[in-house]
Amino acid sequence: MIIDCHGHYTTEPKDLHRFRKDQTEAVKNKSALPPRADLKMSDDEIRASIEGAQLKFQRERGTDLTIFSPRASGMGHHIGDFAVSQEWTQICNDLIHRVCALFPKNFIGVCQLPQTQGEAPTSSIKELERCVKELGFVGCNLNPDPSGGYFNAPPLTDKWWYPFYEKMIELDVPAMIHVSASDNANFHAIGAHYINADTTAFMQLLAGDLFGDLPELRFVIPHGGGAVPYHWGRYRGLADMLGQPPPREHVMRNVFFDTCVYHQPGIDLLFDVIDHDNLLFGSEMIGAVRGIDPETGHYFDNTRRYVDALDISAWDKEKVFEHNARRVYPRLDAILKARGR
Amino acid sequence: MIIDCHGHYTTEPKDLHRFRKDQTEAVKNKSALPPRADLKMSDDEIRASIEGAQLKFQRERGTDLTIFSPRASGMGHHIGDFAVSQEWTQICNDLIHRVCALFPKNFIGVCQLPQTQGEAPTSSIKELERCVKELGFVGCNLNPDPSGGYFNAPPLTDKWWYPFYEKMIELDVPAMIHVSASDNANFHAIGAHYINADTTAFMQLLAGDLFGDLPELRFVIPHGGGAVPYHWGRYRGLADMLGQPPPREHVMRNVFFDTCVYHQPGIDLLFDVIDHDNLLFGSEMIGAVRGIDPETGHYFDNTRRYVDALDISAWDKEKVFEHNARRVYPRLDAILKARGR
Repeated sequence: MIIDCHGHYTTEPKDLHRFRKDQTEAVKNKSALPPRADLKMSDDEIRASIEGAQLKFQRERGTDLTIFSPRASGMGHHIGDFAVSQEWTQICNDLIHRVCALFPKNFIGVCQLPQTQGEAPTSSIKELERCVKELGFVGCNLNPDPSGGYFNAPPLTDKWWYPFYEKMIELDVPAMIHVSASDNANFHAIGAHYINADTTAFMQLLAGDLFGDLPELRFVIPHGGGAVPYHWGRYRGLADMLGQPPPREHVMRNVFFDTCVYHQPGIDLLFDVIDHDNLLFGSEMIGAVRGIDPETGHYFDNTRRYVDALDISAWDKEKVFEHNARRVYPRLDAILKARGR
Repeated sequence: MIIDCHGHYTTEPKDLHRFRKDQTEAVKNKSALPPRADLKMSDDEIRASIEGAQLKFQRERGTDLTIFSPRASGMGHHIGDFAVSQEWTQICNDLIHRVCALFPKNFIGVCQLPQTQGEAPTSSIKELERCVKELGFVGCNLNPDPSGGYFNAPPLTDKWWYPFYEKMIELDVPAMIHVSASDNANFHAIGAHYINADTTAFMQLLAGDLFGDLPELRFVIPHGGGAVPYHWGRYRGLADMLGQPPPREHVMRNVFFDTCVYHQPGIDLLFDVIDHDNLLFGSEMIGAVRGIDPETGHYFDNTRRYVDALDISAWDKEKVFEHNARRVYPRLDAILKARGR
């Protein structure tokens, strides 16, 4: 069984985009917010949006199940106040729930959070509980920078985040650390902001002792861990200089990287330097990079091909494709077992 | 001959630190700035600070010449106004000049710039000219984020930077894109801010057309190009999605990466995916990571070992060790030739 830990709903019904545009305009103009009841997204439309896209690629690539969440760049936690963020987040999460209900074999939900610039993460607890307990979601996406490219919230190791982490532990769900769109002209969202946030989060964890305080907390750092595996020697050396334990013993008991690295040499390096127990298969399909690599004739984001090509044991591949995800997302494991998978 | 393109003076005489501390305090308290004339740094002190450190490592590692600039994290362009930044910068550059005069075979200067938060880069032109024309420097370090971690200046592709670039072209000097200390608790300077800035700069260049406007401009992106080589497939794919030419044809005619990657797998990947004509040997010795790797028994930043170990032609190694640097820094080449080297 192949579980893709990183998929976003990027082929949403077009009325969702209309709604968000209206909502954003209303925030800007301080005018009346669009009514949620006017949103028109039929099951047929959702079905078609998935069947011709994510489902088609699952079949073509031979993957089985995608851990599915709302479009990351769409979260936009820097837009509006908490009420705006909450309404938008609930709509997005409910939509993921509908996809999972229509295709229960192929998708399992992970939620967006109603984070808001300047607002403490405690305000996201209620939506996390709703998604896990009522919608059957198995994790969440946590944005370390709700400002959209100005990084003015406290670091992830700050006690500001702890009440939210404690709820994650209580519910036994991990978070993928994932920023949203960039509101800063310096940062291209997909080409800079995403990768920078991954690197930044890892370094915060290396320099701090979050998992000493909360040993049951689990994070997935996407996009192959940002710049970290490529600079693994730097991080080992920095840990030493900062008087911290080696990252393998300190950070990597609680942190996992996905395989969203879109060429063979990058995947080779990732598997060369990071313990295979810390790697979760992921593709971010359909997401950041949608084209076909002219050097290979295959989609850049068909990361299964790169993992298949590795000279590692069949058991190691099985761990990365399935068992590590079941361990990091225990609620997913329980759901699969209940279904006899 | 082995040229190390990336070295900072990180073993400065202690009175320099005293001066900067006094200057920073004076800025904070709006009190009288410390007089430059009080700075006490003897030739003997400078000599000792180099002989027991950078020079010792050059000899031990068999490298010949370091392109040498002031401590990057010390530039602190977010501290004080232009007058403060200019005074501090002149002092730092004059100090590099003294090192180069004491050890002309071993060091050649690259300057810090008096950049200042909110100040247009034109204000740095005068100091660049002074360093190149009067002090014999061969390049500069350009900070894409003078705010120290808030990235509130325009992107490097913005016309705001062009007058400075035009002066670089007129003087025929490249810039290493290098941020300074982080004033943002989210970003560890060496573990996040540096690497993020490298990745950010590359993505700005990929998305823009700076070198279409200024084909003679040359940048060195340090720390092995940030996250870029590890995610080379992502960048090729993004270029395609943005309707840009492949980065190899578009960005890499004018951009060079150094080899400041502190483990063998990282260097292997760098040389695997990036044309060797775009790679300049560098170590950042003595800098970011000073310890010994327990896995190898050698210094993390002894990057010569990693390059030596590569299975590439002797000519390719020679290019990376020497000829590429002479091409990117033509003033260095001219100085070396004049000395019969």
